[in-house]
Amino acid sequence: MNTAYEYLIGVDGGGTKTHIRIERPDGSHVADGSSGPSALMHGAGKAWDAIVAALDSAFQSAGISRPPLQAIAAGCGLSGVNNPLWAAQFTEQNPGFGALAIGTDAFTTLLGAHLGQAGVVVAIGTGSVGEVLRSDGSRSEVGGWGFITGDEASGGWIGLRAANHVERVLDGRAAGGPLASAIVRFCGGGETCSAGENRERVLAWANSANQSLFAQLAPLVVAHAGQDEAALAILRKAGHEIAQIASALDPSQQLPIALCGGLAGPLHAYLPEPLKSRAITPRANAATGALLLLRQQLEAESVGETR
Amino acid sequence: MNTAYEYLIGVDGGGTKTHIRIERPDGSHVADGSSGPSALMHGAGKAWDAIVAALDSAFQSAGISRPPLQAIAAGCGLSGVNNPLWAAQFTEQNPGFGALAIGTDAFTTLLGAHLGQAGVVVAIGTGSVGEVLRSDGSRSEVGGWGFITGDEASGGWIGLRAANHVERVLDGRAAGGPLASAIVRFCGGGETCSAGENRERVLAWANSANQSLFAQLAPLVVAHAGQDEAALAILRKAGHEIAQIASALDPSQQLPIALCGGLAGPLHAYLPEPLKSRAITPRANAATGALLLLRQQLEAESVGETR
Repeated sequence: MNTAYEYLIGVDGGGTKTHIRIERPDGSHVADGSSGPSALMHGAGKAWDAIVAALDSAFQSAGISRPPLQAIAAGCGLSGVNNPLWAAQFTEQNPGFGALAIGTDAFTTLLGAHLGQAGVVVAIGTGSVGEVLRSDGSRSEVGGWGFITGDEASGGWIGLRAANHVERVLDGRAAGGPLASAIVRFCGGGETCSAGENRERVLAWANSANQSLFAQLAPLVVAHAGQDEAALAILRKAGHEIAQIASALDPSQQLPIALCGGLAGPLHAYLPEPLKSRAITPRANAATGALLLLRQQLEAESVGETR
Repeated sequence: MNTAYEYLIGVDGGGTKTHIRIERPDGSHVADGSSGPSALMHGAGKAWDAIVAALDSAFQSAGISRPPLQAIAAGCGLSGVNNPLWAAQFTEQNPGFGALAIGTDAFTTLLGAHLGQAGVVVAIGTGSVGEVLRSDGSRSEVGGWGFITGDEASGGWIGLRAANHVERVLDGRAAGGPLASAIVRFCGGGETCSAGENRERVLAWANSANQSLFAQLAPLVVAHAGQDEAALAILRKAGHEIAQIASALDPSQQLPIALCGGLAGPLHAYLPEPLKSRAITPRANAATGALLLLRQQLEAESVGETR
């Protein structure tokens, strides 16, 4: 079926970068490439530019001259595909790929994590979201409500709590430790500044920070959890939130569960049992998940054609 | 000393309205007036327009023709005065008042609440902030870090937690009650919508809401605290946060403490003891506090002149 295309590619397109995996129709790996962001919130044209740039860089690294796009089938897992308008614009602006399959990056992450089998993923990066694929093919999402009300355990969520902690310390409402000192320095204050100056700098930082900036505090919280009670409490609460998301996705606790995203590794130690023992690392990444999505669609089309 | 001016006015200028109180130099009350917002974040010119509008409306209601501004001394407690640039612009654009004293609205609230005597206030409205005036004249502020990291117990803070609660209920992470139903209806969903539609409407509302909109959820939380555990838990946590702010402002717990702002009344029942017994209602409002600020400044100038 797939022999109609010379290459199949899987695209993992997020808000900070695009990762692409190229395979031959028989599943053999050809090359990987990456480029800038291709989240659809920045426009379909920019997303396609990033995808083609990653594709060119991947072929170049493999020493293969890129065939015409018509000879390539693309599976794309993209941030923003759940917005129907953006998804339609992306499809319309296809620069010439021979076939196109699209899904959310959450779904391709799920497909990759369990290689298309039933399972649960909780993705924890700047934001957070959980998704389940059941053995009957049905899917559900839990979390993913976004910054500022939701995205529990994410970098943005951890950063908000870390900022609130340092505010309490500067006010005399909480005891200060190494985490508070590190955050004050991060915001431009520190030991050489007066208490009033530290207060002003943290206030200015907190009042102008966005989700990505708050997420930059998460590594400080992780780094100090061994010596700072407030840091430890934030990470334990994050672990508890992940467990609640996982329970809502699979109340029976029978499905395999994978933690994905940049904070999955650092937060594993803070998961409550039995989730800590059960949680696995993903079997493959979202670019491989996007290839699975593509192969499923090509298979379905092929079945349809031969009927 | 004050006889240099025909009238003294106190201005309480916030983000939603301006309240003004007019007195004769001997302290006798002449009239009150109000108008739109005069918080300095919207510009000094708009603040002066609102103040003069409130002044005109107050004189009109008293049936007195307004004298030239030169015959009036103004004390202004304004949101945004802690920004030095905004404060300077406001002073420069004085439309002709004979004398001018300015302070933050938090400080004039404090002066009004204890009639210029030592004491603590915690102001809880859309945002929150605590301030203490000690008997030695020193002052400190606790809280007031703003939306989204701080402002504990405020309308914005309560609304964020209420929105998070309804997200958990729609996900199956928490049990739903009358509060969650009320919030779903507030966001445009309800019993006649599918679960998916309710989810979409709450998501759209939460992702576009700002501090003022989140604060609109606070009355729903207050209204349901008798029949909804989640609502009760949010308000009890708010009461605990107010107690922490009060303790940091006055660790000895000897000073009188007044709760101010639109949520002070509704939250009183949820304060932990001994704060619930100790907390008093303010002796006067922030416009009277602004008049005290003005009289203190005129007194100090008068002493300076006669030296």
